[in-house]
This record gives sequence, C-alpha cells and structure tokens, in this order.
Amino acid sequence: MKKDIIAEIISIGDEILIGQILNTNAHWMGQELHKVGIKNSFVTTIGDNREDITNSLIIAQERADIVLITGGLGPTKDDITKKVLADFFESDMYMNQEVLQHVKEFFESRNRVMSEVNKLQALVPSVCTVVPNELGTAPCMWFEKNGKVFVSMPGVPFEMKNIMSTEILPRLKDFFETPYIAHRVIQTIGIGESYLAEKIQEWENKLQDNSISLAYLPSPGFVKLRLSLSNENKELVNYQLDTATKELYELVPEYIFGEGDDCTIQQMIGELLTKENKTIATAESCTGGYLAHLLTSISGSSAYFMGSVIAYSNQVKIQELNVPTETLQEKGAVSEETVRFMAENIRTKYNTTIGLACSGIAGPNGGTKDKPVGTIWIAYSDEKQTISKCLHLTKKRDLNIHLTATACLNLVRKTLTKKEFTN
Amino acid sequence: MKKDIIAEIISIGDEILIGQILNTNAHWMGQELHKVGIKNSFVTTIGDNREDITNSLIIAQERADIVLITGGLGPTKDDITKKVLADFFESDMYMNQEVLQHVKEFFESRNRVMSEVNKLQALVPSVCTVVPNELGTAPCMWFEKNGKVFVSMPGVPFEMKNIMSTEILPRLKDFFETPYIAHRVIQTIGIGESYLAEKIQEWENKLQDNSISLAYLPSPGFVKLRLSLSNENKELVNYQLDTATKELYELVPEYIFGEGDDCTIQQMIGELLTKENKTIATAESCTGGYLAHLLTSISGSSAYFMGSVIAYSNQVKIQELNVPTETLQEKGAVSEETVRFMAENIRTKYNTTIGLACSGIAGPNGGTKDKPVGTIWIAYSDEKQTISKCLHLTKKRDLNIHLTATACLNLVRKTLTKKEFTN
Repeated sequence: MKKDIIAEIISIGDEILIGQILNTNAHWMGQELHKVGIKNSFVTTIGDNREDITNSLIIAQERADIVLITGGLGPTKDDITKKVLADFFESDMYMNQEVLQHVKEFFESRNRVMSEVNKLQALVPSVCTVVPNELGTAPCMWFEKNGKVFVSMPGVPFEMKNIMSTEILPRLKDFFETPYIAHRVIQTIGIGESYLAEKIQEWENKLQDNSISLAYLPSPGFVKLRLSLSNENKELVNYQLDTATKELYELVPEYIFGEGDDCTIQQMIGELLTKENKTIATAESCTGGYLAHLLTSISGSSAYFMGSVIAYSNQVKIQELNVPTETLQEKGAVSEETVRFMAENIRTKYNTTIGLACSGIAGPNGGTKDKPVGTIWIAYSDEKQTISKCLHLTKKRDLNIHLTATACLNLVRKTLTKKEFTN
Repeated sequence: MKKDIIAEIISIGDEILIGQILNTNAHWMGQELHKVGIKNSFVTTIGDNREDITNSLIIAQERADIVLITGGLGPTKDDITKKVLADFFESDMYMNQEVLQHVKEFFESRNRVMSEVNKLQALVPSVCTVVPNELGTAPCMWFEKNGKVFVSMPGVPFEMKNIMSTEILPRLKDFFETPYIAHRVIQTIGIGESYLAEKIQEWENKLQDNSISLAYLPSPGFVKLRLSLSNENKELVNYQLDTATKELYELVPEYIFGEGDDCTIQQMIGELLTKENKTIATAESCTGGYLAHLLTSISGSSAYFMGSVIAYSNQVKIQELNVPTETLQEKGAVSEETVRFMAENIRTKYNTTIGLACSGIAGPNGGTKDKPVGTIWIAYSDEKQTISKCLHLTKKRDLNIHLTATACLNLVRKTLTKKEFTN
C-alpha cells in the first residue's frame, strides 16, 4: 500500500480567529481533499502576522507534503502573505505581465478604474508558478520545494473553490500520482442512523471485503451514505461502486430518494411532479409556512406548487379549510380528523392533484398530558386516497418544524414512487 | 499597556479534517475569548493521533499562554487525548472517585447501565484539576505548567459550551487577572454596511478617542454593531458604553431594532404586536411561506400571527385574495397594484390588524427587460394606511427570498415604532 499523501491547510485571517466568520474554506477543502484520496491531517488558523505565517510554514513543511494556504492576498497593508512567501522561498518579486493584464481587464469589464494599489496584485515571487484566478484579482501561486507543494490562494470562498476545483486538485493528482478514487452518495430519508445501520449490516460487511469504505452522514431527518473506493483500475472501481449501490437500492428502496451530494427531497419531488404533470398545495399549521418554503426554494416550482393556506388560528382552519367547528372542539386542532380535513380541503380549494397538511404542537409550550410537545399529525391527499400519520418528535421548536416538513415531503415521495418499491 | 494573553485552540477530530463536520467549536470559543479580552492567535485541527497531539502541545506551549483542547475524550479506543496529556505532563493516572460517582449517577438517571468502558471516563492524570462536566460523562481537565494553562474539554458542543461559560472562562479571567471588558451589540436593519459607516462616521471617530473599539458584523439584510471597551474601572466602562449606545440611537434610530447578540427582528415584532394587542397575516407570492416561517419561528407567535395565503399561482391570487383579473392582466402579478390588493385583502379576510404582502421575481429565471430578476413589490396594510415599496434585489433566488421577508418585517417595525423616530 502506498504511503498517504499528507496535506495541511493554513487559513490566514483575524476574522476567523475572533469568530467573526466560520472557517468554511477549510471545511470545504477537507471534503475535496478527502474525495481525491489526499489525507488532510492539519488545519492551522493564524492571523495576518508575519511571524505566525513564517512559523506555520516551517512547521507545515516538516509534517505535510501539500500545504494549502488561503487568505491574506488582498492589496491592502494588512495582507502580507505574499511577502512572507517570497522571503520563505528566498525569492525576489517581479511584476507578472499576464496577471497585470488580467487585473486591468477585470477592472475595465466592471467599469472601474485600476488604482496603483490594485496593480500590486500582479507583483509575485519569481520562484512561483502563477495559476490564473478567473473570478478575482489576487493571483494564485504554486511553489515546489523538496518534492513538496505549497499553494497560496485567495480567501474569498467562491474564488478559492473555483481555483481548487479547476486547477489545484487536478495538478495535485498529477504531481503526486494519486490512485483513482471514486464515490457514490446515496440519500436516505425517514430512518435514523442506527436503524439504517442495522438493516444494511450484511451489505456493509461485504463492502469491507471489497475495500469499499462507507461513511454515514446524518442530519435531521436524513442520512447520507457515502461509498468510496480507490484503485489503479478505474473500471473496476466504478463497477464495484455501481454494484454496491444497486444492492443498496434493492435492500432499502423505501428510504432512498436520490444520489449525489447536493440532491434534496424537495428537488426530487419537484422533478416527479413535473414529470407526472401533477400539482400540489399545502395547508400548514405548526410548520407555519416552512413546508411551502422548502417546496418553493426550487427554481421553477411555480409549475407545480399552486399555494398554501397557513392556518395558524382555529378561525382560519374553520373559515378557509372548512374544518368543522365540532371536530376542533371534540378532537382538537392537533388530531387525525382535523389534519385530514385540511389536506382534502386545500386540494379541492386550490384545485391541485395533491393536498398536504400538518397540525401539531411545535413547542416549547402548549403541550398537554395527552398531546405532549412534539405530537404532530400530518396528512397527504390525492384523488384516490387520504393518508394520515402521527409523529412523536422532540421538545425543540425549530427541529420539530423541520422534521414535520421533511416527513410531509416524504409522504409525497412515498406515494408518488410507490410502484418502484420491491418490499 | 499590558501584554496580550495569547490563546491557542487545539481541535481534535478526524471528522473535522475530512469536512464531515464544521469546526463550530473553535468559532464559538474564538468569539468568547475575544469577548473577555483574551487574544486567540491560533487554531490547530488535528486527528485522533498520538504523535500529532503531542507535537501540537509542544508547539502550542511555545507560542500561547492558554491552550484549549477539545475532543478526543470519549471512552472508545479512538480517543487517546487523555493518555497523551498524562505523558505530556509526565503524570500517572488515577481513578477519580467524584468523577466515577458522577458517571454512575449520569447513567442511573437515564436508566442505563454503566459499562466497564464507561468507568474509564473517571481515570484522569494526577497532576490535573478536574472541572465538573454537568452535561456529560467525559471530565474536563485543567493543567498548569510554567505559568501557562492547558484545558482539555469534551468535543460535544453543548457540553463544551457549558463548561467554558460556567467554569473555564471565569477561571482564566482570575488566573491571568484580565482587565474588565464589556460589550454592547446593537442590531440594525435595512441599511448596508458602507452607508451605515458613512452616517455614523463622526460618532465612530469619537469612539476611538474613548478607546472603544467598534466591529461591523454584516449578514444579508442586517448589520450588527459591536462596541467593546476594556478598563480596570468597571463603572467607567459601562458608563462610556451606555453613552455611546445612546448617541447611536439618536443618530440612526430608523435603522436600530434591538440590542444583544441573539435579538432578531421577528422576535422584536412579536413583542411589539403582543404589547399593542395587534394581529398579523401575510399574503406571499415570491417568499413562498418564508415570511410566515420567520414569524412563526417565535414560540408564542400564535397569539398574534393568524395565518397566511401563499398565492403562488395567479388563480390563487384572484380566488383567495380578490386581486382583480384586470389588474393581473394589465399590471402583472409583480406590481404595486397587485401587492396592495394582496395586503389589504388578507387583512380583511383573516380579520387582523395588519396585512403584509409581497410579489416579485425571485429568479434565477422569469425576469423580463422591464422587470428583471430581483424586482419585488412589498406592501403593508393596517386600518389607517397601505404602504407599498419596490425592491431591486439580486440574481440569487434564496438571497432574494430572505431579503424580501426581511424588508417586509422592517416595514412592520417602521410603522409600529414610528412615534419613536426623531428624524
């Protein structure tokens, strides 16, 4: 087995140290390095300070093969990274004409004047290779020393991400001849991490025999499964990952809603509704509009989402959703009967294929002995059926709102994809 | 001037390095250290690895006065921090009876059995002072060496935060005799950072004369201003901060909506509505329920929030909000006339004091030459008046939804607090 390629990230910026901004750059870079099989072993965050930057470079070159530096490249006096790097590599600086031209065009295209200070962006150490920064003016610099690579990138997240994805990661893979590695991300909904682990235990054991590693990535309402395999043989890798993914689908089809890191349940439902030419409306009590918000967060959702009634008060439930006063009095606003009326009546009122409804006690107050905080009824209704379900959630208001909306979307998914189920 | 007290945070955890979780612990600790006047100069993230932990401790003791270590304290075999710390301080380990008792009671109170592995939590280095961890089983350990302090805390965020707030920060302040420091956070809405800076320039200059430092903390729609002052004289500090705050209120009353780090506009509006015994309903198009979601994210909002119509389709606008078909045909769904009908009619329909409405092109598609993406109309209506306003926002869908909801809430605030304005 080949030795690990070790990376260290050095994040420069006082604003990270005092907690003014979160170090999302290091988080994202850690993910990307992991995906290509480079072992990120250290993240060091320091301020815009000559001594600390120099010392961090000295420490990093001892323990890492790759040193990725972000931040400290602006043209103002606070940003001294470039000078420190030139000293560290015992290099002089020169005005790079290509960078200068790029900076000039960058300002011209925005109808802004390039100042003398901006010109300084083009001043770079002679020993570095300049990597273009399409989206900004601070150049990215690539240094090599004793078989190790140092890269200095701007700290602006979208600039850094673009440079990393299009330039640095491919170059690092070439330089260190990293083996081929691939991943599959499978998205599940409606089952907790430990229950899922139990259901797929045998499958998981078999993965290990094929050197496929598995990560559980849980978030409220969801568990992402990430399969990773590294091998010189690209075809074998993809064949094995595809096979394992297929087996997982056969094992727990009722919980899988999509693939890929960015896939969301609301997007998947949007695609299904569009494909089947169906429309939807929601009648929400305890989610207070959050369910509609999730559905409408998708661009183009106006094609299938018609609207909602947020019925927070009983008066609105009676007047707008025709929930009978007797039902509210006898069964309560949080009841199977009420939520079924809501789902059925929003569907007819807004003339949609599907009506979706919820009513519950989000908390932290308002619970009773019979209906404690976290008791929530949800319902789905279409022309053939109305399905209702009681959830017993947590004591936390925001979490309950989120989990209820997620469960409602899952009801839609389950009904729309029923034909695909094998067990 | 006293020398800075330098802190280093060492975050231990493979899951941070591969980007599985964000290092929110270091972010929060950076904020808290900054608040008490301790300079956080380094954050080092490493894996659960003996050599890396030891080396990081050696590096940290050279450059920092305070070393705060989080993570790696679980009872499983991966978590080796405690053993490394014992070796680093050349200490043996012993079974701390108080911790053992706490672990025992912790499991008992949850009706769970304490295993042999759990008992190991009570094994601690002899040279440390054990600091109680009320909310978990891993003990927090305080070490002193050559006038420097090392603290090892659990990585579970709510355990760490509790220990830091109640035990570690007060002890650090005592140990290093840090001067008194206080802060005021003033929340503004509806003005960009640079415009605000221009308006309060003179006031800001005067702050410097009084050694008050000012930070601008912007987020979409909002700018928080944080004033900080450190001095031996506690009364003077509070007097000067109060005076500066008061002056700011006089300068830009129309933009300030509250004080304190956690204060939100929806909470402030909830308090105002409750106090004045008023109710509200929303008619939303482009925000798709997000405005209602913000209002109902506040516990107790059912006292003043009655409900909403999310009118995504024109049909719903006509049928439920009585927007005349001619208006939609002649002026369009995104128009002043439409949004005023929506605000006025939701108010009468839901019988509330206030009606709030919006309609716009959230994007990324759907823009025209006359009404490009980001064109959004909002309206406020009560028994005396209807106010409407056109916003020209961005190309980004989620940002537009957020900024529109924020602007709607700001309309409510402005109208409800009108009497308090001085200019």
